[in-house]
Amino acid sequence: MATQHLDPTDPTAGPVPADALAGYLRAQATEFLRALRLHRETGAGGPEESVDAARALRRSARRISGSLHTFQALLDADWAEDMRPELAWVSGTLALEHAYASRLERLLQALHRLSGAPVFSARPATDVAVAGGSAASGRSAAPGGAGPAAPTATAERGNLTVGAAKAGALLERQLTLARTRAHSTALQALGSSRFHAVADKVAVLASEVPLADGAAGADLRPLAAAAEERLTDAIAALPLVTAGHPYNAEALVHGLSPDPVPHPQDAPWHQVRLLLRLHRYAREVVHGAPDPADVRLLTAGEALDRHRDASEAAAAAAQAARTPRIAPATAYALGVLHADQRHEVEAARYAFRHCWQKEAVGTS
Amino acid sequence: MATQHLDPTDPTAGPVPADALAGYLRAQATEFLRALRLHRETGAGGPEESVDAARALRRSARRISGSLHTFQALLDADWAEDMRPELAWVSGTLALEHAYASRLERLLQALHRLSGAPVFSARPATDVAVAGGSAASGRSAAPGGAGPAAPTATAERGNLTVGAAKAGALLERQLTLARTRAHSTALQALGSSRFHAVADKVAVLASEVPLADGAAGADLRPLAAAAEERLTDAIAALPLVTAGHPYNAEALVHGLSPDPVPHPQDAPWHQVRLLLRLHRYAREVVHGAPDPADVRLLTAGEALDRHRDASEAAAAAAQAARTPRIAPATAYALGVLHADQRHEVEAARYAFRHCWQKEAVGTS
Repeated sequence: MATQHLDPTDPTAGPVPADALAGYLRAQATEFLRALRLHRETGAGGPEESVDAARALRRSARRISGSLHTFQALLDADWAEDMRPELAWVSGTLALEHAYASRLERLLQALHRLSGAPVFSARPATDVAVAGGSAASGRSAAPGGAGPAAPTATAERGNLTVGAAKAGALLERQLTLARTRAHSTALQALGSSRFHAVADKVAVLASEVPLADGAAGADLRPLAAAAEERLTDAIAALPLVTAGHPYNAEALVHGLSPDPVPHPQDAPWHQVRLLLRLHRYAREVVHGAPDPADVRLLTAGEALDRHRDASEAAAAAAQAARTPRIAPATAYALGVLHADQRHEVEAARYAFRHCWQKEAVGTS
Repeated sequence: MATQHLDPTDPTAGPVPADALAGYLRAQATEFLRALRLHRETGAGGPEESVDAARALRRSARRISGSLHTFQALLDADWAEDMRPELAWVSGTLALEHAYASRLERLLQALHRLSGAPVFSARPATDVAVAGGSAASGRSAAPGGAGPAAPTATAERGNLTVGAAKAGALLERQLTLARTRAHSTALQALGSSRFHAVADKVAVLASEVPLADGAAGADLRPLAAAAEERLTDAIAALPLVTAGHPYNAEALVHGLSPDPVPHPQDAPWHQVRLLLRLHRYAREVVHGAPDPADVRLLTAGEALDRHRDASEAAAAAAQAARTPRIAPATAYALGVLHADQRHEVEAARYAFRHCWQKEAVGTS
């Protein structure tokens, strides 16, 4: 592989000085400020640009926060400890609106798939994705866009069974309300003094990275290798043998459990998703830029994103089924939908396992 | 392979005379009469022997009927045409009771799996299988064994969520009622003049097989090969590429469809199941006995049996969800159960495809 000599775990590669970390953090801080400016400029204008700007903000906030975590030993300890939770708060707050929008889109698409293709001869399933996408970006800036599902949306699904249509309307109502609340919360957060303090600190970071005493000459590679080791350890603890057998029916095992935490089995996978991201960011720091080998990490990460999304969509379907006074047909459709998404969870584990095994073979 | 030279499609193998067919039919007719005698003797006695006798009756009825179909050209046409539907009626009528019992067992086991293992620390899931099995054999002979589910059965599932427990009780009520009705129908059928006529014809067959004029010297292999060709043609028309990709989500595509025939996609697989059975019986006729290569056919057949069972269990869960005035929690559990069984359908297709590919490689 062309990038093999840049592998942070490769003992024959040369040391990577802390300067690379400083350069990376400065670049990400600059990117954060650029995205923030764009967000302020587009906030009242085109919603698509606003969504892009919010995504760029989250993206850089995650990278700064992740790098502070992995390379904390080389940074001013107090500064890094103050900064990390604030950046996590920013990216977490901004992520929620997008999460609700894409969860609704995923669930509505699944409902359409489950209702059978022939139903959509006049209205192809892709329309839904487009409608969902425009709802996510188009309506997000409109105040009061939530509330009960628009009657038109329900009429558009008139060809579905009553249960599927009602389940879709219920999910649309609940998740649109949640998304609108998340949107308001994000707007409030961006206008808060807490956020201004974060932005000020990032502005300082863009020109001056507070390295720890004597860190300037240190090698980044051992810390990057430690991040990779945390990832591989966590992956080694996953039930990958089971995940590698298709149709193992593991993901739905607790599907009807009275356990209030419905799927504790998902937690280690979510954890691996976060560790994989930290590993990927550490590689970016060490290599100075995303390198071709990252494509594999991206694919593995996408499988884990899908795992997380399906897990949360399944939980949303189960949650909606607990709405009082719903019709049995609605509850039935939500049960089918829940199980469908739990099988997506299982499919994502299978995909991750195969991707990761290829990865292990490819880089060993 | 040791049995390769007995392959009916192998042009280097010698012809198999129609005598082999006559011998096979005589043996199966004798087996039918033996099972019938056993069934009559044990009908009032031990229910397990009665179930075994009914299974043996079905088994030989299917084999005679299947052989009449495959080798009809070598048999007295009028006789074979009269005989086949009557034998199909016997095996079909006797199969229903067993089908309802095993469907209930499958659905209750799935409900227990879906409710999560920790719930069953005091009561392992295997107990359910045993209880289901004894219900199938033990209660089948008791008149009036149907009606509402026994309160004790519901109490035993007290650890489950209310929805899963209620869904289980509902399925138990409905399928036990159906099974009891099927049992009565089977008893009536066995006492009918129609059945006595079939039994008389089988008694004649046990000593004298009505071959067509000039068939005595004919070769069985071309007709056996035609049966195999019908099977391979039907398999070639299956969506095996899709089935070979795990988690293709095909089986649930119509899960919430308003289509009154819920899963037309299952029909070609059910058809292959029947053709595989005919091929297997034709091999038995030509080889004089089950041969080692049949183990693979058996495995493929088991995957298709599982496909059929899961398909019908999924339909039963969907049907139960249409019961008026059920609670939303019950309907939700039935929706999860339906989707779970549809994924079993998909898993069975995947298993068949892998088994069959191995088969094709092994015998080519």
